[in-house]
Amino acid sequence: MQIDDPAVIAEARAVFDRYEAALMANRNDELDAIFWADPRTVRFGITEILYGHDAIRAFRASVKAYAQRIQKKVHMVAFGKDMVATHLEYERIGTGLVGRETKIMVRFPDLGWRVVSAHVSLLTPVDPGRAMR
Amino acid sequence: MQIDDPAVIAEARAVFDRYEAALMANRNDELDAIFWADPRTVRFGITEILYGHDAIRAFRASVKAYAQRIQKKVHMVAFGKDMVATHLEYERIGTGLVGRETKIMVRFPDLGWRVVSAHVSLLTPVDPGRAMR
Repeated sequence: MQIDDPAVIAEARAVFDRYEAALMANRNDELDAIFWADPRTVRFGITEILYGHDAIRAFRASVKAYAQRIQKKVHMVAFGKDMVATHLEYERIGTGLVGRETKIMVRFPDLGWRVVSAHVSLLTPVDPGRAMR
Repeated sequence: MQIDDPAVIAEARAVFDRYEAALMANRNDELDAIFWADPRTVRFGITEILYGHDAIRAFRASVKAYAQRIQKKVHMVAFGKDMVATHLEYERIGTGLVGRETKIMVRFPDLGWRVVSAHVSLLTPVDPGRAMR
């Protein structure tokens, strides 16, 4: 299994950049197209737990405008030819809030690259559960 | 590419269950062994941003006891023979807090199954960034 094949990384990076541009421009159709159109697709958002492309699409349709963010760090690892794990650290502009986004991209023989799982969260300085003790 | 090969799902589920048992028993050595021993491994925790197995191991060493949790839902998808995306919804016992954990498991020819990326976060009822507006 080749790790970090440059051609694979480049392809996944193109999808990553296209996704980020679509997010910042609120182009929901493009975001929907990048996610795998399957009931098994998952998106864990800051306030959402979404299983399946239909649920993700319904959530997107409810969003008027995404919070603007700037990328602080992008870290990608490619495993073989067909899977890339992408990690983004970002800052919400004007808030000081730091977010993290993990995406799993898979290359399907018939579809090309799709995001099959995404997890977005804000970093919290203190674990609220620990603070409750 | 076969999706959800039952044998692959079963193998990844065994790793998943072993990880969960080790976490609940604070067996850091076993948690460290399940993660890919590589600088490219990532763990986004509730209060942590960790790149590399060394950083993850150092974090583990600082944890005296993990918060106890019960599983609410496990959702796994296998892509081919060597990659499984695992998703867990859990509840922190006694707190009402809901957490989500995404893990990417890769089967390496020489090592077997390893977690190459993990992202843990607590669900927040309201996005703090939106609340700030």
